[in-house]
Amino acid sequence: MEATQTDIARLVHRQEIADRLVDYCRQLDEMDLEALVQNFTQDCRVTYGDDPHLRAVGRAGLQASLARMWRWRRTAHHLCNLRIWFADDQRATATSDVWAWHEAPDGACAEVYGTYQDTLKRTKAGWLIDTRDMRMRGANANFRVPVPPARRHDPPPGWTAPEGLDA
Amino acid sequence: MEATQTDIARLVHRQEIADRLVDYCRQLDEMDLEALVQNFTQDCRVTYGDDPHLRAVGRAGLQASLARMWRWRRTAHHLCNLRIWFADDQRATATSDVWAWHEAPDGACAEVYGTYQDTLKRTKAGWLIDTRDMRMRGANANFRVPVPPARRHDPPPGWTAPEGLDA
Amino acid sequence: MEATQTDIARLVHRQEIADRLVDYCRQLDEMDLEALVQNFTQDCRVTYGDDPHLRAVGRAGLQASLARMWRWRRTAHHLCNLRIWFADDQRATATSDVWAWHEAPDGACAEVYGTYQDTLKRTKAGWLIDTRDMRMRGANANFRVPVPPARRHDPPPGWTAPEGLDA
Repeated sequence: MEATQTDIARLVHRQEIADRLVDYCRQLDEMDLEALVQNFTQDCRVTYGDDPHLRAVGRAGLQASLARMWRWRRTAHHLCNLRIWFADDQRATATSDVWAWHEAPDGACAEVYGTYQDTLKRTKAGWLIDTRDMRMRGANANFRVPVPPARRHDPPPGWTAPEGLDA
Repeated sequence: MEATQTDIARLVHRQEIADRLVDYCRQLDEMDLEALVQNFTQDCRVTYGDDPHLRAVGRAGLQASLARMWRWRRTAHHLCNLRIWFADDQRATATSDVWAWHEAPDGACAEVYGTYQDTLKRTKAGWLIDTRDMRMRGANANFRVPVPPARRHDPPPGWTAPEGLDA
Repeated sequence: MEATQTDIARLVHRQEIADRLVDYCRQLDEMDLEALVQNFTQDCRVTYGDDPHLRAVGRAGLQASLARMWRWRRTAHHLCNLRIWFADDQRATATSDVWAWHEAPDGACAEVYGTYQDTLKRTKAGWLIDTRDMRMRGANANFRVPVPPARRHDPPPGWTAPEGLDA
């Protein structure tokens, strides 16, 4: 049951990747965009949807694009469900889920249940997010940003809902 | 301050267990039930409540039972607060909390603050969930599935609420 | 790419710290305050705001103060976004975010998006929370406890919101 050197090194790498994803959330809520973009590679590509406002290339581009978040009075981004797959010592993919709460200036709350699909690269500055694509599992009626839906399998032909469960 | 071989091995095992619990959430939101049941032992017992619809035995039984989740249009299961206790190298117990959002076809949102109580076994396929019991800490009015309550201690005799705190 | 002894030891320490923060949440929801205060040092200082009801010193003081949580019928505290910085082998700081749901006796739900700023000490009983300060990123209208706001940078002069994004 001994852990191998690779097992152990990967735990250290996982922690470094988790830190980058958590820093993104915290720095977004703090609107410290200058710090936030340091979690990404220089030539990162970040896509929250098809709208041009929701696509950015490079650190400067991302910083300029995320300035849109100031249209909210307050936000809270809670990350969970992180999974990481290593291609090798230099490249990994990750998925994570985020619950994002946004308060508009009029007090209305827009909530989205999002999922991030990331690729990461190990650079001289450590692991960084190289590409990020966002999808959403759901949202409340106040959230109207056109984030594309996450995939969900359809029920098999002939499926019927059980009765009485939500009575 | 050196970590022991057992410390290190347990970190690797923890990660494997965390991955199984996270995969469950993601695969449930994706309704990829065939993949989801691979996180459980062949003869698993999974109980979300006393209602027969909420109890399953074995992978096939669990897959059939969870087909009920298609009655929701969309869901998001966010896991947190994971704690793991190892009995030995082959068995562990775990608790975790889940925030589960469910959207009905009419757009109503049912939300539950649940807690999972799991036992896990280490098999040839790695760590797998052997038993799962769900309780709930709370829910909103739209969530009417009869999940049993999580335990909560009562206040001591004579306790009175402080005044002015929620004014 | 080999992990150093310090890397490995820190992973073990991180897990111990994470366990303390998770135990706090679970034991608060269970209102097992006697167990909860064991996550803190004997002379801890815990501050959720300026109100005297929201400040406590020492384990006994914290246990007495948190008895206020019984004014809620049910609660759920979901921790995420944990970041830890080690000063040395004996001291660390940590930040984490919590989504806290509270149900009043009349069924109203008070929700707060909080952030904990902790310092931790390594004692004979392992890592313990020595000081905790809470801030909040936001809350819904039913949450009226005077927790101070978390910091958020202001937009640069001349910033204007993009049009059409929330149409």
